[in-house]
Amino acid sequence: MSEKIAVLGAGSWGSILANVLDGNGHDVRLWSYNPKQVEELNTQHTNSHYIKDFTFSPSLVAYSDLASALVDVDAILFVVPTKAVRAVAGQVSEILQKTGLQPQLIHASKGIEQKTYKRISQILAEEIPATNRKSVTVLSGPSHAEDVARKDITLITAASESPDAAKYTQKLFMTSYFRVYTNSDVIGVEIGAALKNIIALGAGALHGLGYGDNAKAALMTRGLAEISRLATSFGADPMTFIGLSGVGDVIVTATSSNSRNWRAGDELGRGEALDDVINHMGMVIEGLATTKAAYELSQERGVSMPITEAIYQVIYKGKDIRQAISDLMQREGRSEF
Amino acid sequence: MSEKIAVLGAGSWGSILANVLDGNGHDVRLWSYNPKQVEELNTQHTNSHYIKDFTFSPSLVAYSDLASALVDVDAILFVVPTKAVRAVAGQVSEILQKTGLQPQLIHASKGIEQKTYKRISQILAEEIPATNRKSVTVLSGPSHAEDVARKDITLITAASESPDAAKYTQKLFMTSYFRVYTNSDVIGVEIGAALKNIIALGAGALHGLGYGDNAKAALMTRGLAEISRLATSFGADPMTFIGLSGVGDVIVTATSSNSRNWRAGDELGRGEALDDVINHMGMVIEGLATTKAAYELSQERGVSMPITEAIYQVIYKGKDIRQAISDLMQREGRSEF
Repeated sequence: MSEKIAVLGAGSWGSILANVLDGNGHDVRLWSYNPKQVEELNTQHTNSHYIKDFTFSPSLVAYSDLASALVDVDAILFVVPTKAVRAVAGQVSEILQKTGLQPQLIHASKGIEQKTYKRISQILAEEIPATNRKSVTVLSGPSHAEDVARKDITLITAASESPDAAKYTQKLFMTSYFRVYTNSDVIGVEIGAALKNIIALGAGALHGLGYGDNAKAALMTRGLAEISRLATSFGADPMTFIGLSGVGDVIVTATSSNSRNWRAGDELGRGEALDDVINHMGMVIEGLATTKAAYELSQERGVSMPITEAIYQVIYKGKDIRQAISDLMQREGRSEF
Repeated sequence: MSEKIAVLGAGSWGSILANVLDGNGHDVRLWSYNPKQVEELNTQHTNSHYIKDFTFSPSLVAYSDLASALVDVDAILFVVPTKAVRAVAGQVSEILQKTGLQPQLIHASKGIEQKTYKRISQILAEEIPATNRKSVTVLSGPSHAEDVARKDITLITAASESPDAAKYTQKLFMTSYFRVYTNSDVIGVEIGAALKNIIALGAGALHGLGYGDNAKAALMTRGLAEISRLATSFGADPMTFIGLSGVGDVIVTATSSNSRNWRAGDELGRGEALDDVINHMGMVIEGLATTKAAYELSQERGVSMPITEAIYQVIYKGKDIRQAISDLMQREGRSEF
């Protein structure tokens, strides 16, 4: 099968996913709001701010005009930062209503909307009328863009309420090195994808503060448990958290300096100021906003999330990070579940 | 509380646990079958073959005579290698029958008995009459001995069918840096403790073969799922595998070169011969025997365990490791659960 696919968002993950799709013989249009980046992609076939030392397929075309990218599309993949999803979806909606197309929607964004606490698939479904889309699928799992770029083996989840939509996404992406597993738990996969960045911040902070492997493994385990508690309060399947987009994603995000959330936590743990960390990262640190949304949600729903609360206190209330982590790790031992 | 506790087995984990108990004011007797090691512990307060650059508490006394170590004991902690558990438990049983003591039994060994496929707590219960013991508790979780030695924060599980026994163990060990959580799922905790070493071998092999973070996270996730499948077939609680002795232990064992099972897998992946790896490790690599037991069990019970099977083929059937891992990672993508 060869499909026309618009990939919206040309960060490291969006551009690499576009390249995987191109490699599978699809007609891929990679959209970015940044004309300079579009020019670099189309003339140099590089995306140097996001992926170092990587040459993209010459058949992959980048667009700065959204309508051009959406001509005759069969599927749209959203990979824009969470805070931009609603605005971009609104523009997509206007164009689709004019063209009358009804593409499959897929997203690989990782966050929860501020204030509304909406998941990405909820935002897409709100902004784009049902007559102009098929089911929404979320693509998520343990996947550094850098590993996919060098065709290392990656296993990832495609979750949709529609089994057909999940299988369609699986077919679009499946290669010998990029293995896609279908799943029906959209809520669990989206909450796992977003909130794992909080655990990555925490694990990075432990590293920066000089804690060892036991402490990091404990934080990741207890972090996964609190994410699972929040997600199941919304109807997610707890088994999702023992899968690729639970355990798997937490492992890859919270044990590797490839993760910018982990790096941000590490720098905070070493005593750098939050503003400095944000400034020199030069890419969106999704975990910061996610921490705020998750903390507020946990308060609203009465779900205990001590790790999220500790990170929230550090980022938004100026609590000393050494004290916050020490308090967290010293909580009274008790029954595990 | 100050208890008389015999710690049987003076490897890295046994000796460090003995030191933790000593630090909590208990009367601790550390037994080893090796008189030279006992002498080193009692005169130098070191255990240099197992823990480098660490000085043990001078009040911790080592014994080579088992009966002396067991005088008036309130609790016995077994930390001997799996293959020695039945023999040591038999000797303990004879002594307890003479003295008429009925101590608490705790173990922190990690394996499954060859041929019988028995868990450690089953072996202990078979060898020591109920009149000479209280309930058996298993202590397990993400815990490199090296981290505990330098008093880094560790969270660990004490599981017993008896809540009182689990709480007793929690009280014995609990310190500001060694946090013990109680749990009632003995089957899940023991199977998790044993079989995670297979995943560590596999993750090490991926590393040795040059695979990246995505592949390792995927293997750990799918590995945890297959361990959980086998354990639940014996009545374990699947939630155990999202806890400290599931996810937590897999993370700490399979992401760190501190784990000798990981190191063994890494060396196999780099092309070293199995015999060479075993010879120069100089400590028991529990995962090798566990792989055999788990593979045979999975066949007997009809539980799909593709990772265990791949490692088994490499270790026991001489399959090329590169081919085995490549076959494993290329299995057809499909529904995740």
